[in-house]
Amino acid sequence: MSRSSVVDVEALVFDVFGTVVDWHGGVVRDGRALGEEKGLDVDWAAFAEAWREEYQPSLARVRRGEIPWRNLDALHRESLDRLLDRYGLDELSEAERTHLNRVWHRLDPWPDAIPGLNRLRSDYVVAPLSNGHLRLLTNMAKRAGIPWDAILSAELSGHYKPDEEAYRTAVELLDLQPEEVVMVAAHERDLDASRELGLRTAYVHRPLEWGPDRASEAEMPEPSAYDVVATDLVDLAKRLGAEPLI
Amino acid sequence: MSRSSVVDVEALVFDVFGTVVDWHGGVVRDGRALGEEKGLDVDWAAFAEAWREEYQPSLARVRRGEIPWRNLDALHRESLDRLLDRYGLDELSEAERTHLNRVWHRLDPWPDAIPGLNRLRSDYVVAPLSNGHLRLLTNMAKRAGIPWDAILSAELSGHYKPDEEAYRTAVELLDLQPEEVVMVAAHERDLDASRELGLRTAYVHRPLEWGPDRASEAEMPEPSAYDVVATDLVDLAKRLGAEPLI
Repeated sequence: MSRSSVVDVEALVFDVFGTVVDWHGGVVRDGRALGEEKGLDVDWAAFAEAWREEYQPSLARVRRGEIPWRNLDALHRESLDRLLDRYGLDELSEAERTHLNRVWHRLDPWPDAIPGLNRLRSDYVVAPLSNGHLRLLTNMAKRAGIPWDAILSAELSGHYKPDEEAYRTAVELLDLQPEEVVMVAAHERDLDASRELGLRTAYVHRPLEWGPDRASEAEMPEPSAYDVVATDLVDLAKRLGAEPLI
Repeated sequence: MSRSSVVDVEALVFDVFGTVVDWHGGVVRDGRALGEEKGLDVDWAAFAEAWREEYQPSLARVRRGEIPWRNLDALHRESLDRLLDRYGLDELSEAERTHLNRVWHRLDPWPDAIPGLNRLRSDYVVAPLSNGHLRLLTNMAKRAGIPWDAILSAELSGHYKPDEEAYRTAVELLDLQPEEVVMVAAHERDLDASRELGLRTAYVHRPLEWGPDRASEAEMPEPSAYDVVATDLVDLAKRLGAEPLI
């Protein structure tokens, strides 16, 4: 992204799970707390990964129209119930399931996320553009102090990313042209869909997204693959700052 | 609102123009600045009132389906151009008109608004529910430091208040039942429409909304008219606090 093109950007929209917050660490944290309380013997890192692996297939059912729109609490709950069954954790009460399912509202930001967003929001409108629904993102931001200027969500379009409606609706609500908006994500699929629609793209590297054991699998794309390729959100802020590095 | 019923409330949604921010003072402030710069002789208080008086008729054209949805920037601009014509201010350039039109993004909160919202947001989700569009409300909050948890807007439903879709969409996006949401407004029409749909209602008295000259016209409703009748947002926070006054 050249200096002159950076000047045109007015807003940055962010993927959230994995990009801004650490879902793996959050599920492990709350899983272990529940496990200790109930005396459960569970590999919560594996549990977290298994739960997340259900995510894209459950979105795909909505995206293909096999099931009507439902929010992430509902999709997460369906996969959680199957997973608890598979793990022999049927003993969990309704209240315990509800609480565990809402761990996705209680995820912590990566250490660089809030400092990076605070730098970025002095120059740009910053908002999530997540498949998480508005209330989930609102609860998450309120708990963790994430300084969003507004809460955007795929929910506002009734279509999950990477369906194009999700991005188009966000751009419309920002009252901008696609090229005035940067999609920020740790996932190439999200960025590729955004670029197709004319948004600018910033890749953020999150090697710990799937937990420390899988960090070595994470490969960073070539610097030329997206408008910006950054190591974290503070690095992104530097690259979009007054003296862009690229 | 009894103490037990207060416990059930999870979110407060706020009318903005007049209830949270001072549109009259903001238009007068920026009008005078422009007038001094250009040497214009205009009664900006009268201008502000005349502009605002165009507001409900312009919304009504959208609400009746006479014109397709357009956001407040577009509606304000149509009425601004008519008004400039009427005031003999045709000399204003396109850039000056655009800037003046966006004064609605630059309104200041009433002095009690941010302290009141900061108290309320420790116990409730707080969001605007304005006929202002998402970007306008986002810009306004960013400029003035209004601590919203999320930005809700009639725009998200494609219907202006008091159309019921505007309220229903906000309640759905909060993932709540209507009785878990309080509509806060200085305008009885807004509150009456909310109550019809099962929301709770809080009236806030804003005698200066139409400027100091018309303050004496403002009458406060009976305390029984709404769930809460408050003098300002700090008073509202007290009334909804740990020791409700009513």
